[in-house]
Amino acid sequence: NGANVAAAAPPVVHYYLNNLTTTTDPVTNRETVLILTPLARFYQGYWDNLAALSYPHDLISLGFVIPKGRDGNAANSALQEQIQKVQQGPHKKRFASITVLRQDIENPLQSQSEHERHKLENQKERRAAMAKARNSLLFTTMGPTTSWVLWLDSDIVESPHSLIQDLAAHDKPIITANCYQRYFDKDKNAMSTRAYDYNNWVDSPTAQELAKKMGPDDVLFEGYGSMATYRSLMAYMVGKDGNMDPNREVELDGVGGTALLVKAEVHRDGAMFPPFSFYHLIETEGFAKMARRLGWKSYGLPNYFVYHFNE
Amino acid sequence: NGANVAAAAPPVVHYYLNNLTTTTDPVTNRETVLILTPLARFYQGYWDNLAALSYPHDLISLGFVIPKGRDGNAANSALQEQIQKVQQGPHKKRFASITVLRQDIENPLQSQSEHERHKLENQKERRAAMAKARNSLLFTTMGPTTSWVLWLDSDIVESPHSLIQDLAAHDKPIITANCYQRYFDKDKNAMSTRAYDYNNWVDSPTAQELAKKMGPDDVLFEGYGSMATYRSLMAYMVGKDGNMDPNREVELDGVGGTALLVKAEVHRDGAMFPPFSFYHLIETEGFAKMARRLGWKSYGLPNYFVYHFNE
Ligand SMILES: Nc1nc2c(ncn2[C@@H]2O[C@H](COP(=O)(O)OP(=O)(O)O)[C@@H](O)[C@H]2O)c(=O)[nH]1
Ligand SMILES: Nc1nc2c(ncn2[C@@H]2O[C@H](COP(=O)(O)OP(=O)(O)O)[C@@H](O)[C@H]2O)c(=O)[nH]1
Ligand SMILES: [Mn+2]
Ligand SMILES: [Mn+2]
Repeated sequence: NGANVAAAAPPVVHYYLNNLTTTTDPVTNRETVLILTPLARFYQGYWDNLAALSYPHDLISLGFVIPKGRDGNAANSALQEQIQKVQQGPHKKRFASITVLRQDIENPLQSQSEHERHKLENQKERRAAMAKARNSLLFTTMGPTTSWVLWLDSDIVESPHSLIQDLAAHDKPIITANCYQRYFDKDKNAMSTRAYDYNNWVDSPTAQELAKKMGPDDVLFEGYGSMATYRSLMAYMVGKDGNMDPNREVELDGVGGTALLVKAEVHRDGAMFPPFSFYHLIETEGFAKMARRLGWKSYGLPNYFVYHFNE
Repeated sequence: NGANVAAAAPPVVHYYLNNLTTTTDPVTNRETVLILTPLARFYQGYWDNLAALSYPHDLISLGFVIPKGRDGNAANSALQEQIQKVQQGPHKKRFASITVLRQDIENPLQSQSEHERHKLENQKERRAAMAKARNSLLFTTMGPTTSWVLWLDSDIVESPHSLIQDLAAHDKPIITANCYQRYFDKDKNAMSTRAYDYNNWVDSPTAQELAKKMGPDDVLFEGYGSMATYRSLMAYMVGKDGNMDPNREVELDGVGGTALLVKAEVHRDGAMFPPFSFYHLIETEGFAKMARRLGWKSYGLPNYFVYHFNE
């Protein structure tokens, strides 16, 4: 009598962390992937690519964290609709499980326009809020059977269907794609692409010097002329030295979170997204630094792309 | 047909963090508590007190993390035996769920004797390993419905049955009992008690000065004559100013993990146990500092006791 046995014995579960592998062939080895997305706005392109991932969906769990308030409600409704379709559709397309976390706070920025989001004076508060959102999602969804965590922003509207396999194949503790953006080039009267995510970088002596002069709570932000760091940005390493190999790897000191694959053991050791100044870094950039302190290195693929929505 | 429905619709679950309360009356408000124990050795006294907790067991989940190797195997066997008994015993005594995590590493110290554990030269490696064990346990067991996390060491062999209610009643983000040890006083030819956990403290200018002179990876440890910090130790605040009130609260800058109640939102924001030098602090003491950076204060109850095993 299965039902009675279940009721009679509350779950006692054993997990052996040394049975949890993270290999270059995670599909064959049936490694579970947790895809985590902080979701302030819903984008259909994001969802379509997620649903089209060629990694076996029964090995994928999804987690979302959505802010309180009107925008959050709208994002949540749009997400629900798509979840319904996929989870009631063909078995092969269904994900193993989905968790939606509604925050008890609103997004700290009134306007979510790209212009407002990227103002320097808004960065510290905004990135701290993002970090807390990522942490609450991570701490509440990662389980004892999670092998990999893929951080994927909701405004990544174009990504390869083999994203997970492609990134995992490099066997790195932390690895990121290069995040670009499509736009209409008026001069050329044609579509083109440009760098979007400046958080993937190799550190510089200038940035180190800037940091030394800062107060303990001050944070260095990348991509602001008023605070030139002279770090080497992965965004600008595309095709460097004539190398267009999508498998080309570079070691990074700071990473962004747009499409970032992390071995779960890195998070399990304690690596999270500092919502405070950590070596004058915050959020995903602070995460790379914290992971490094735990002995884990970060890498990026300058010639392997995902694309950010363009307003 | 319940079974088919379950198979047909993989779990999609919504959680509203603002419905998750942490109040002074957690029993009435049906708040869930996750009790987490890093377990290198099993002690019957620990288990008996756990099983005797008056907090409703259906609101309690247990999580253990056990090192690899012979000692870990022995601790695991002893634990299994007790779990079997409780979870198959009277319904009212059963816990909601139990997770046992086996680490893929051994305890870094060959000998687990109190003497070996407490040698200064062993502290950094030992505390870093403890921190990682705590983090992996926390990151993999905390769920979206956890209101409180109680950290309880496996060698706390005596604790009040109302431990959870007593600590929660103070409505603090982080609060700890005072950890003492019973021993036989040869001079008096009678049993007596003495301070055990020195990690609960109020910071001092001396400690701050010591920290300033340290290298970036160096860590300050409390309770070592060769490194006198002149911090105010909660261990020595018992009955201070004639106040024996068990409800007396003191604000702390560092905490230990022997019997520590934490609101889950503190961890959810990202507060973990740094396995590296964080402001020259590590593990539970580093946790208090990290939580403080996130805006959460720590407190202790100098006149409210739990007792540590005595070898
Ligand atoms: N839960 C949550 N998600 C957010 C918040 N702010 C932004 N996001 C999401 O976090 C990711 C990164 O934020 P975004 O504003 O796109 O950063 P940017 O592209 O660097 O300007 C996106 O997936 C957003 O939808 C927030 O306050 N809470
Ligand atoms: N999982 C795990 N638990 C440990 C390890 N070392 C100690 N513990 C447990 O962690 C808690 C604190 O460690 P303990 O050695 O008692 O610290 P002390 O009392 O301060 O000397 C106890 O519950 C131990 O059983 C370890 O390497 N791994
Ligand atoms: Mn974005
Ligand atoms: Mn102990």
